[in-house]
Amino acid sequence: MSRRQLLAMIGTAAGSVAMYNAMTSLGFAQESTYSGPIKLEGDPKGASVLILGAGLAGMTAALELRDAGYKVQVLEYREKAGGRCWTLRGGDKYVELGGAVQDVKFAEGNYINPGPWRIPHHHYGVLDYCQRLGVKLEPFMQVNHNAYLHRTDAFDGKPQRFREIATDYRGHVSELLAKVVNQNALDETVTADDAKLLLESLKTYGVLDENYAYVKSDDTSEFRGWDKPPGGGVDGAPVPSEPIALSDVLQSRLWANLVTGDSIDHQGTIFQPVGGMDMIAVGFEKVIGDLITYNAKVTKIDQNDTGVTVTYVDSNGAAGEQTATADYCICTIPFSILGQIEHNFSGEMTSVIDSMSYAGSVKFGLEFKRRFWEQDERIYGGITYTNLPISQISYPSNDYFSDGPAVLLGGYGWGATAYQFNALPPEERVAKAVEYGAQIHPQYTEEFSNGVAVTWHRVPWVLGCYGIWADKEAQYATAAAMDGRTLMAGEHISYLPAWQEGAILSALDAITRLHKVVVGA
Amino acid sequence: MSRRQLLAMIGTAAGSVAMYNAMTSLGFAQESTYSGPIKLEGDPKGASVLILGAGLAGMTAALELRDAGYKVQVLEYREKAGGRCWTLRGGDKYVELGGAVQDVKFAEGNYINPGPWRIPHHHYGVLDYCQRLGVKLEPFMQVNHNAYLHRTDAFDGKPQRFREIATDYRGHVSELLAKVVNQNALDETVTADDAKLLLESLKTYGVLDENYAYVKSDDTSEFRGWDKPPGGGVDGAPVPSEPIALSDVLQSRLWANLVTGDSIDHQGTIFQPVGGMDMIAVGFEKVIGDLITYNAKVTKIDQNDTGVTVTYVDSNGAAGEQTATADYCICTIPFSILGQIEHNFSGEMTSVIDSMSYAGSVKFGLEFKRRFWEQDERIYGGITYTNLPISQISYPSNDYFSDGPAVLLGGYGWGATAYQFNALPPEERVAKAVEYGAQIHPQYTEEFSNGVAVTWHRVPWVLGCYGIWADKEAQYATAAAMDGRTLMAGEHISYLPAWQEGAILSALDAITRLHKVVVGA
Repeated sequence: MSRRQLLAMIGTAAGSVAMYNAMTSLGFAQESTYSGPIKLEGDPKGASVLILGAGLAGMTAALELRDAGYKVQVLEYREKAGGRCWTLRGGDKYVELGGAVQDVKFAEGNYINPGPWRIPHHHYGVLDYCQRLGVKLEPFMQVNHNAYLHRTDAFDGKPQRFREIATDYRGHVSELLAKVVNQNALDETVTADDAKLLLESLKTYGVLDENYAYVKSDDTSEFRGWDKPPGGGVDGAPVPSEPIALSDVLQSRLWANLVTGDSIDHQGTIFQPVGGMDMIAVGFEKVIGDLITYNAKVTKIDQNDTGVTVTYVDSNGAAGEQTATADYCICTIPFSILGQIEHNFSGEMTSVIDSMSYAGSVKFGLEFKRRFWEQDERIYGGITYTNLPISQISYPSNDYFSDGPAVLLGGYGWGATAYQFNALPPEERVAKAVEYGAQIHPQYTEEFSNGVAVTWHRVPWVLGCYGIWADKEAQYATAAAMDGRTLMAGEHISYLPAWQEGAILSALDAITRLHKVVVGA
Repeated sequence: MSRRQLLAMIGTAAGSVAMYNAMTSLGFAQESTYSGPIKLEGDPKGASVLILGAGLAGMTAALELRDAGYKVQVLEYREKAGGRCWTLRGGDKYVELGGAVQDVKFAEGNYINPGPWRIPHHHYGVLDYCQRLGVKLEPFMQVNHNAYLHRTDAFDGKPQRFREIATDYRGHVSELLAKVVNQNALDETVTADDAKLLLESLKTYGVLDENYAYVKSDDTSEFRGWDKPPGGGVDGAPVPSEPIALSDVLQSRLWANLVTGDSIDHQGTIFQPVGGMDMIAVGFEKVIGDLITYNAKVTKIDQNDTGVTVTYVDSNGAAGEQTATADYCICTIPFSILGQIEHNFSGEMTSVIDSMSYAGSVKFGLEFKRRFWEQDERIYGGITYTNLPISQISYPSNDYFSDGPAVLLGGYGWGATAYQFNALPPEERVAKAVEYGAQIHPQYTEEFSNGVAVTWHRVPWVLGCYGIWADKEAQYATAAAMDGRTLMAGEHISYLPAWQEGAILSALDAITRLHKVVVGA
């Protein structure tokens, strides 16, 4: 019996927690519930499925269901697939809710991903579909020690290098704790043996000197950077740098983002598709594009004992209604949109649909005449954090060292910030982002070329960036359950909200359950 | 006046420390003494320079001196340029000191860099030459939270994921210190205001709960990983994982490598040349290859008041001596080799040459039939650390997700370890590395295909991996000073030993001083 077969058997017999425990003990601990390409065994005998929405959930369902022998049709509101898996490039025209138009003017090859932009190493579903669909991936730089931490109210607004705050905070904290250990002031939960090891480890961890102090030295400069770095030839000797005092580090509050890149969703190694996130959508389209009816705006979903009938019109307003029918329906339409469509889902499902709100967020793609962040400041990829409304600046993780114009993520904000930007016309949003960014990079003023700003509450096909549950604990099972002949799928029907992996896993789960119904398993 | 001109003026007037301080205050803090392409102004009027060694120091000198109008000849022992900037590929044959031959059997496109393998973001000299020479770079993955920390005497020899030890150590340390702060047991150096901020920061830093405890929770699992990760559909709810107890973390000693990747030489973003480190050597050769005499083994260096005469023979043993003469000499021959060559350098220089020892190290390139570390364990690049003699395993930072055979760095050891491997024939070294690695990756046994092992004390053209000073403080000025008509250059004449940046900076410094002598500045 192969390892996979054994795991499948454990999974079937005892549920997925047992399977995961088994996988862990076999040495293959997984960080996604994706367990390899799905196998839908048994003949669906001509059953048909109508899929609403050609985002990643819809296209995953379409691909796998067709492979399993179903008749599949996908209705998509837009003129292309992907949904939130979306990339803007030069020549693109984006019309947001309210009618404001943005003509993207980026140079050839430059792009911004207004939606998802990163693929964590443990999002095995996305990664495996990328591989199956021939989507090339490259590392995304999340943590860059040479990028900045910035607050308008700290260090006179002067950005500090991540490495300086990270090294100094860790050094001071280690010194403080070492002092307590040396005074035998730790409570009795730490044994004398462990206290000795703790001291030794703090010395390494905090780069402390022989007296367990965090001080200016070649050793600490090797982590926080030098006043004059080691060089070559006669004048090669380095000059160490002075650490920032504990009080200044604490009061700066720049420690707030020290561990952001250490969460499992952002840990190295993390990826991005070469050329833009929508390469995934394009990859799916190559395989199942023939199943998709584009520019189809769903106006009514009607299910009964024998099937599902969906009415749709042309998204661009051409006259005439059409209908599509099937035995079953996989509905990936975000609840923000679905709530505005006539349907006859159960009362319970309707109440979940109607109670889900959608988060707002704003993202800026700014093109500059040159990569000043690389050329002047030696920042290659990675993220600068700030308390300004732009919240962060992410430098491109591709085409390092290249000449010519480049696009950075000039801001990525949430909550109140998103609402504020939402209220401004696009060109004012961009102007604000440039004004804010110039406080960190003075070169912005001279080097800015053009930009776009996407506020997700104004994105017509979703009206928000991800679903927020009114009461997840009470509602989740209802939303995930089969309602008549329909199963919902998408990031909202997952515990990975806003992540593409959530959309894919949710779709795989939905079609697995649908298939059981169909083949009577 | 441009920023660069201003900096150049400050540099000339007040020395490099002043210049660096100025650069910092102008917002362009640098972490290399490389300050952009060198300008050697003034006419050398036909002066000639003989350069010994076509490694990065020698080729940098050759390129810049020829551009400045010098007559340049380079003598190189090997059949190709690069020195320690060296890559082994399938089809290569490597004969080490003692005569053992290794025929490299890697598949097309696979390689190992026995010498330097990484380019830190602040090694501006190397980076800028890469750009000028058209050498493409890609990110090197140093820190991978999904790679392992391993000790034979910890956790029954079972490797732990980096993220688990990193999160748990930080969490426990933060909890311990928070407890002390809450008990008002910190000494009076921390004010009450700062203590409050310290508490708040420790909560973020250590992922502590509302009681400042580091516990099993969704929050801590989001950093250390889950027992069952968040998924999609009905069974999507996650199950958090149990942190490892402080005592177990401490006693495992796996904390020893938690900050290794945080030193400035290893911080993200860090690079490697696409296709192998010797792409840099190839880039130089394209420009100044015509200046190089290959297979030239220097046997004598004779300098007098009028010039330098160097005698050399064919490296492969063909009969006949030849001589080359020039007005000046840049000697990049490692002192380990130079000490065995007849020369008439000053007594002081001779004593430095003779007293320098060279470090040993060993590196393994192991080819496997498939990328089991990616396919089975989801490790994409990065480094696993172990207390086994192999010391570390580095997974390839290129061609992620590809099928077919791949090469990883199966070990990189120093000190006593290097001596032990040095004493074994190559095939036994490789067999040992496979045996050790199999303790971390059981797949080694089945998937191993072939390998090479380079021990640097047996590399004929350097006999070690970098120079170790007997007394750097006392000797450095002598070694760097012009001795008659010769200047030494290479990583050994730098404060960046073993780094290519040291070689380049040392060469730039040497030729700058030489040029001043020649043009009488």
